[in-house]
Amino acid sequence: MRALVYNGPGQKSLEVRPKPIIKLPTDAVVRITRTTICGTDLHILKGDVPTCQPGTILGHEGVGVVDSVGPGVATFKPGDRVLIACITACGRCEYCRKGMYSHCTTGGWILGNSIDGTQAEFVRIPHADTSLHPIPEGADEEALVMLSDILPTGFECGVLNGKVKVGSSVAIVGSGPIGLAALLTAQFYSPAEIIMIDVDDNRLEVGTRFGATATVNSSDGNAAQQVMKLTGGRGVDTAIEAVGIPATFKICEDIVAPGGTIANVGVHGAKVDLHLERLWSHNVTITTGLVDTFSIPMLLKTLQSERLNAKQLITHHFKFDQILDAYDTFGKAADTKALKVIIEA
Amino acid sequence: MRALVYNGPGQKSLEVRPKPIIKLPTDAVVRITRTTICGTDLHILKGDVPTCQPGTILGHEGVGVVDSVGPGVATFKPGDRVLIACITACGRCEYCRKGMYSHCTTGGWILGNSIDGTQAEFVRIPHADTSLHPIPEGADEEALVMLSDILPTGFECGVLNGKVKVGSSVAIVGSGPIGLAALLTAQFYSPAEIIMIDVDDNRLEVGTRFGATATVNSSDGNAAQQVMKLTGGRGVDTAIEAVGIPATFKICEDIVAPGGTIANVGVHGAKVDLHLERLWSHNVTITTGLVDTFSIPMLLKTLQSERLNAKQLITHHFKFDQILDAYDTFGKAADTKALKVIIEA
Amino acid sequence: MRALVYNGPGQKSLEVRPKPIIKLPTDAVVRITRTTICGTDLHILKGDVPTCQPGTILGHEGVGVVDSVGPGVATFKPGDRVLIACITACGRCEYCRKGMYSHCTTGGWILGNSIDGTQAEFVRIPHADTSLHPIPEGADEEALVMLSDILPTGFECGVLNGKVKVGSSVAIVGSGPIGLAALLTAQFYSPAEIIMIDVDDNRLEVGTRFGATATVNSSDGNAAQQVMKLTGGRGVDTAIEAVGIPATFKICEDIVAPGGTIANVGVHGAKVDLHLERLWSHNVTITTGLVDTFSIPMLLKTLQSERLNAKQLITHHFKFDQILDAYDTFGKAADTKALKVIIEA
Amino acid sequence: MRALVYNGPGQKSLEVRPKPIIKLPTDAVVRITRTTICGTDLHILKGDVPTCQPGTILGHEGVGVVDSVGPGVATFKPGDRVLIACITACGRCEYCRKGMYSHCTTGGWILGNSIDGTQAEFVRIPHADTSLHPIPEGADEEALVMLSDILPTGFECGVLNGKVKVGSSVAIVGSGPIGLAALLTAQFYSPAEIIMIDVDDNRLEVGTRFGATATVNSSDGNAAQQVMKLTGGRGVDTAIEAVGIPATFKICEDIVAPGGTIANVGVHGAKVDLHLERLWSHNVTITTGLVDTFSIPMLLKTLQSERLNAKQLITHHFKFDQILDAYDTFGKAADTKALKVIIEA
Repeated sequence: MRALVYNGPGQKSLEVRPKPIIKLPTDAVVRITRTTICGTDLHILKGDVPTCQPGTILGHEGVGVVDSVGPGVATFKPGDRVLIACITACGRCEYCRKGMYSHCTTGGWILGNSIDGTQAEFVRIPHADTSLHPIPEGADEEALVMLSDILPTGFECGVLNGKVKVGSSVAIVGSGPIGLAALLTAQFYSPAEIIMIDVDDNRLEVGTRFGATATVNSSDGNAAQQVMKLTGGRGVDTAIEAVGIPATFKICEDIVAPGGTIANVGVHGAKVDLHLERLWSHNVTITTGLVDTFSIPMLLKTLQSERLNAKQLITHHFKFDQILDAYDTFGKAADTKALKVIIEA
Repeated sequence: MRALVYNGPGQKSLEVRPKPIIKLPTDAVVRITRTTICGTDLHILKGDVPTCQPGTILGHEGVGVVDSVGPGVATFKPGDRVLIACITACGRCEYCRKGMYSHCTTGGWILGNSIDGTQAEFVRIPHADTSLHPIPEGADEEALVMLSDILPTGFECGVLNGKVKVGSSVAIVGSGPIGLAALLTAQFYSPAEIIMIDVDDNRLEVGTRFGATATVNSSDGNAAQQVMKLTGGRGVDTAIEAVGIPATFKICEDIVAPGGTIANVGVHGAKVDLHLERLWSHNVTITTGLVDTFSIPMLLKTLQSERLNAKQLITHHFKFDQILDAYDTFGKAADTKALKVIIEA
Repeated sequence: MRALVYNGPGQKSLEVRPKPIIKLPTDAVVRITRTTICGTDLHILKGDVPTCQPGTILGHEGVGVVDSVGPGVATFKPGDRVLIACITACGRCEYCRKGMYSHCTTGGWILGNSIDGTQAEFVRIPHADTSLHPIPEGADEEALVMLSDILPTGFECGVLNGKVKVGSSVAIVGSGPIGLAALLTAQFYSPAEIIMIDVDDNRLEVGTRFGATATVNSSDGNAAQQVMKLTGGRGVDTAIEAVGIPATFKICEDIVAPGGTIANVGVHGAKVDLHLERLWSHNVTITTGLVDTFSIPMLLKTLQSERLNAKQLITHHFKFDQILDAYDTFGKAADTKALKVIIEA
Repeated sequence: MRALVYNGPGQKSLEVRPKPIIKLPTDAVVRITRTTICGTDLHILKGDVPTCQPGTILGHEGVGVVDSVGPGVATFKPGDRVLIACITACGRCEYCRKGMYSHCTTGGWILGNSIDGTQAEFVRIPHADTSLHPIPEGADEEALVMLSDILPTGFECGVLNGKVKVGSSVAIVGSGPIGLAALLTAQFYSPAEIIMIDVDDNRLEVGTRFGATATVNSSDGNAAQQVMKLTGGRGVDTAIEAVGIPATFKICEDIVAPGGTIANVGVHGAKVDLHLERLWSHNVTITTGLVDTFSIPMLLKTLQSERLNAKQLITHHFKFDQILDAYDTFGKAADTKALKVIIEA
């Protein structure tokens, strides 16, 4: 089969690889019909993710059709259409029993990281019963690709951890795919204000289109002051960090109101300064989190009931043999205005 | 009346000052019968708290008898015995309505800070109806002094923010009065393990006496490793920072388990490093907080029902005219083994 | 001044009464500019509310202008435009400190019940600081009348108690003003389904217009079966009882899913059957509640940010001297299609 | 093998039955080393549980040793010592993913009910990976038998559903094994008062020994008045119903304070009266629940850390061939003072 392989920092190729087989009784093999590229894949290609060894097939998002299952798989059978969660979960370990699937002792984020991923014609999914989701009759599969990672991540790590509430004020630092996923799902809770912050005016326009009540271009370094002005000097109840660098975390620290929450979603490569000399008395909460994907069944319902328009996040389409072009387009998002790209089998 | 006055960094004196009078209709004047000294008073004396101007009477803890009330005070009358909350709260502003009294727009921590405090024969208490608590018949007033600040702080900012749970594991970094207050109140929730960490073996012994299940002397710099060993490599569900320096916050970052919480109680004078390059994916929560004192009525009940032995925290007694000796004893805690000192009128 | 007075079961009259005066330091007198009639006023007129004695001025909703204040009122002054909460709260008692204002030991629901109410030119408001809300510049006062009682009641007792969640299923039994208030505010949480149940097709049509995803006419006695069919045999996560009779409570018991919640909002005059022989193992929660009105400030924000269209609830307008006509119209809602009526000074 | 078989209402016998075998890949067969009898077994024997057909082996509690496992079992192997949860859970269905194992679509309470149970030398456990718990080295197996059902039930359905809180007041109606399990686990949360109510003075004495702060003998019909007196007319924050008849539910309705919770644990055979004509405005919560057993791992920790003394519940010991005597002793608890009886292989 064809597969997109990571060959070490800066190197990837479209290769022919053997079709995966069932290794453990709880495995399934899924034929991929649609996948996509994540910002994390670019991190791997920069060499930032040491758990991903050269030779690994990338990708942790996608939908497909079950090709074969091990004898221990009870819920799925060949031919079933399935959504692949980016997190693999055994459903039994101490973490899984608490719903903290991201830290499953034999799973977690392993697809396209420590084991081969979804940017291929087939993929082996461990713990299939608790890592795949059935696709409801009549669902739009393209929209569902957004449920493998980006929407649960924006929702769980941004909106839920950030305790977005009806009538509250929210700022989202970073208007890329993950910040926009937080923006879409924050609206489930009817906050009074959602301020998008980014350096790219195009992405801020998208933010406005997706429901932001105000936007702030942070390229002049005065984002915090502008947010304080927009909130009457009070700051925001929830600040969602969706970039992953010290400067954007600093904005969050500067704009969070007393009693508010900073929800970190960004993947950081370096430590940040935490200004406890000021914040110790501000009754703030800071959260970090890798997505658990427990919200996928709920997000499916909101898709089906049309309370969530996930397809808005998709800007480009490619066939599988154009996957290198897809990487190009996704990698140059400032020019191409790419958000999420769909790669079809 | 006699009063302990802050005269600028490093300077304090026992002075004669005019008895306070009612300034606003919601004020009460209280005759102090017992007060104490807080670590924060030492911070002020170092010059670390700019909101406290020279000339201010120190102290934000104590019990006493109502001497006079303004016309707007409905709940208290002269002669009533009262417990003074360290936090003054109007009960009406946006923050007070949320129970976040620490950020009351016309109150918060003002006693012995921006207005005269309780280390005097009399003190004026603004917003008396919502800043004083009636003392139940037969209560031990000495024990109640521990309810002005230290026990609510350990409980609200350490135990509640830290989400201490039945069966969970807890580490408390700092076995001084505030860490011990967290230790006493953490036991309300029956955690399976409570590990006390300090550099002073005497304080660790006190920790064991107060209910710690293990102690770690951190003076050799290996506290984190020892805690990881004690917890089978898993770390703790709750790490309570009760010191206020970068090194102790670092221990908390190193020992918090995935899904766990760091509850900061310490008053910090400098920023700390937050290692998001590691913690971004650990699903941790970090909280900060000035006490709201909403738990005082509940703590009173636990005192009355003998589920809490607050008097254990008291090591020394002084008369009011010995208050400078009391400061000496409290300031040299490593030598005197002082925890909380009671100063009687 | 003119006032609508309850003169015993079945009797009311528009009378001239003396203008109220300040009795306690914490009182305010408010000149009413707009008020309305509540279903509870009709209950009183039936003689169902023994705490309301003949001779009492009715009404517990309205907006107006502060006319005078007692010396203990700190937040309001004559001339301030204010919204009157239907619940009077001292802000200090054990219940108020927990935010359970409905059970304030010197307040609660007293307006137009145990003391004179708002269907008059002036009203005395006890505990004014914590029972009135300032009206923001530019707010639509007519819409605000809906915030005195009906919207907080639908929201707090129906939506919050009922734990309405994103993606969940909700049924509201009773599509009168209070059920519709629950319907409007349930949408803050983006449930996947909201089923309105009533015997009146007109009210069901209003429900559809206000956002219901399905409606069920319960006049044939098969409402429960229809709801089970609509939910694939599963039942609803939240059933809101907004009528107050045994038959409608029974529907809720029959349609609540395992793990679901029945939130009772209706005012009941008789006991109901609780089928514990079936429900004991269904992991259900049943809640009751008089509104606390703690959500008024939040609802004000959602009005201002246009996430809530409160004016939809208003169907008729009257001048104060037409208040008997207003009662007629409101009392014959099946014919007049009245929901809420506005009575202007 | 020998097994205790239900042969229809009023009839049971100790029989020889074939040893169970693996039917599904996720099954395990466990050799029972210790089991016990539950009040629910007596209900079955009265003919009250129609899902339990004549011919079924009774019992849903016990510990043992894994004898064999199906190919889909990943966590356990023959020889492993295990605790059997009374609830069987697949870990994958909609209910299991929410932690509501009691309503697992292919499990729930099936052992000794719709399939053969644990009062036998061997038992087949479906969904073994998520229905068994490993026994820690050195654990006291007798104590662990209390963790199959009774302690999780008292804790989850009584204490957690009842929101027992530090400093709060609790009444437990019924001082039998399940009420006592609630009493033991309520103390995890340090309530200020726990009042035990029963008609049997012996059981009330046990209650006092297990930590109750007061007891009320309800045989004179004045239990509610006595509880109101004990609580200064206020009622209790939590009322736990641990009997299952209308009279005891009525006591709970009469003693719950405004804002309080009635947690139903008792298995009811008939409907009860719910006095909404009084309770509609009292802001109370009523919960029902079959145990989910999610708390077993936590309870294991509290046993190991000696915060919970489960063995106190055990009053009698029998060998397996004396199981009919064990039933006799357990069935005549008023005379024998039996709480839980241990039956050893």
